[in-house]
Amino acid sequence: MVDPWHSCIDKELSICEQTMMDALQFENPELTEMCRYVVSSGGKRLRPSLCIISYLMCGGTDVQTPINIGAAFEIVHSATLVHDDINDQGEIRRGRKTLHREYTTTKAIVAGDCMFAVGYNLLVDVKSEIVRYVLEASSAMASGEFVQKDYEHVSRVTEKDYLKIISGKTAKLFEASAKSGAYTADPDSDYISNVGNFAHELGLAFQIVDDTLDVTGDPHNTGKAIGTDLLEGKPTLPLIYALEDPRYKEELTALFEEVDVTTDMVVRALEIIRDTDAVERCLQRAREKAEDAKAMLDPLPDSVYKQSLLSLADYVVSRDR
Amino acid sequence: MVDPWHSCIDKELSICEQTMMDALQFENPELTEMCRYVVSSGGKRLRPSLCIISYLMCGGTDVQTPINIGAAFEIVHSATLVHDDINDQGEIRRGRKTLHREYTTTKAIVAGDCMFAVGYNLLVDVKSEIVRYVLEASSAMASGEFVQKDYEHVSRVTEKDYLKIISGKTAKLFEASAKSGAYTADPDSDYISNVGNFAHELGLAFQIVDDTLDVTGDPHNTGKAIGTDLLEGKPTLPLIYALEDPRYKEELTALFEEVDVTTDMVVRALEIIRDTDAVERCLQRAREKAEDAKAMLDPLPDSVYKQSLLSLADYVVSRDR
Repeated sequence: MVDPWHSCIDKELSICEQTMMDALQFENPELTEMCRYVVSSGGKRLRPSLCIISYLMCGGTDVQTPINIGAAFEIVHSATLVHDDINDQGEIRRGRKTLHREYTTTKAIVAGDCMFAVGYNLLVDVKSEIVRYVLEASSAMASGEFVQKDYEHVSRVTEKDYLKIISGKTAKLFEASAKSGAYTADPDSDYISNVGNFAHELGLAFQIVDDTLDVTGDPHNTGKAIGTDLLEGKPTLPLIYALEDPRYKEELTALFEEVDVTTDMVVRALEIIRDTDAVERCLQRAREKAEDAKAMLDPLPDSVYKQSLLSLADYVVSRDR
Repeated sequence: MVDPWHSCIDKELSICEQTMMDALQFENPELTEMCRYVVSSGGKRLRPSLCIISYLMCGGTDVQTPINIGAAFEIVHSATLVHDDINDQGEIRRGRKTLHREYTTTKAIVAGDCMFAVGYNLLVDVKSEIVRYVLEASSAMASGEFVQKDYEHVSRVTEKDYLKIISGKTAKLFEASAKSGAYTADPDSDYISNVGNFAHELGLAFQIVDDTLDVTGDPHNTGKAIGTDLLEGKPTLPLIYALEDPRYKEELTALFEEVDVTTDMVVRALEIIRDTDAVERCLQRAREKAEDAKAMLDPLPDSVYKQSLLSLADYVVSRDR
């Protein structure tokens, strides 16, 4: 069997887990419990991985620094998930109740805020450039959410709009994670933008697959119900492609523009999307993005870390969860 | 006419305003507009003031640093107000619609998150101790909110519980602001804890007055409706004191414990509280806290800045808005 993409940093990832748990420790036991509930619910740790691998690939040797930065990124990311789930009225994430459903919305908003504070606190001793990356990613995430919100139930959304949304929502934080690792290893590295661009394209591929799994995924694997994006009226690539099919354009437009969506309507929309070539086209698009990502690493010398990132790109587009 | 307490830092406060506006500038124009809407809606700028005055009082000379830190504290504080207003379903703040009412809840949650990022970004070049103060204050704010939430509509709340709540909600961030100023001026200053304790007691006095204004205030001055704490079932000191009056104990307990509060019930509860000695006792308690605060500054040599803080303490307990 082939080693998984992360085998070269398994030790570092396990230290990163511990770093996150240690950082999420408050005087108030319920607050501690809530924050740890979120972070311990799994997740692929792609952001810490990108940071740590990029650091090692660019010649860094003191691995605790990118571990702390990676932990910060993962905690900030988790905090945004908590707030996203409130905004989307999400019930289930990673096979468990979302934080605001397990506790209360009020406490979940506040716990999310606290997680931001913890995340930034993990960045106190790093170069100021890194905090600037996080700010850029945060404002891009907000902007992505805003654009996504503006296109809810709006069927004239284009692939370009969609790419703008997922660049902000997902790819920018991937990019910031990787750049932070590379910059921390060597602020003068020639490869910072390569690594950043790799991670950005990877983020796009990742999100396209994520949105495709909302149509085709097995809830048993993904840990969440399918069709939730449609239920929330979120514009996604499978929908955009399916809307191009003349057989269904009218019906699917009506279904997507309906604000009071019922389960039956979601089921029908899923049926339609699956009957078009949308899913195959999405996976093709994701694979292209993954190849674009990999090409960004061409100038870098070969190493176990470069190989790991290349495998990661393959993993991202082949995953079923 | 006596100079207002802030006259010695008016120039710095005006630079601080500009610093906040400049920092809250994003690629997404709506995001910029939202964040500036919150920060430009006024507020007393007590946190930046505490930071800047403490810095100057402890001998600091490069005033831009505490201005940035003060701006960071004000922005972080404003972000928590945005989220608090969502949690409390607040409609009006400082005489204007709350952010989530003027825009949407989703966008307000996200804009708040972005403001945290901006706040922390303003702290990139400061000593790591400062970021740790912010983290401590953030976790105290969360903890204060949690305890407050647990005591909603619970009439067995005590003054001690209340002080714990407002210490977390308000006083800890006051303390962090002042300590940050003093520490930045001189990390070895003997006065850091004096200044911090002053600000903490000041924060308690401030919040007691705030909660009393919810019973006696003129909406024209305070910029918000009265009785909102009662409507939300929040345990406050005027309520706690009024519950001690045997004439009304039973009736007021029933009113406060009712989860489905009506306007009529709030009006009656306000009537009761005003008919007891609760308001006078609260103001007395606030004045004591303000005196406790002032006493913390006894060891410090006299200066225009010390005088300014002493006047601030008097202002906080005499304000009607």
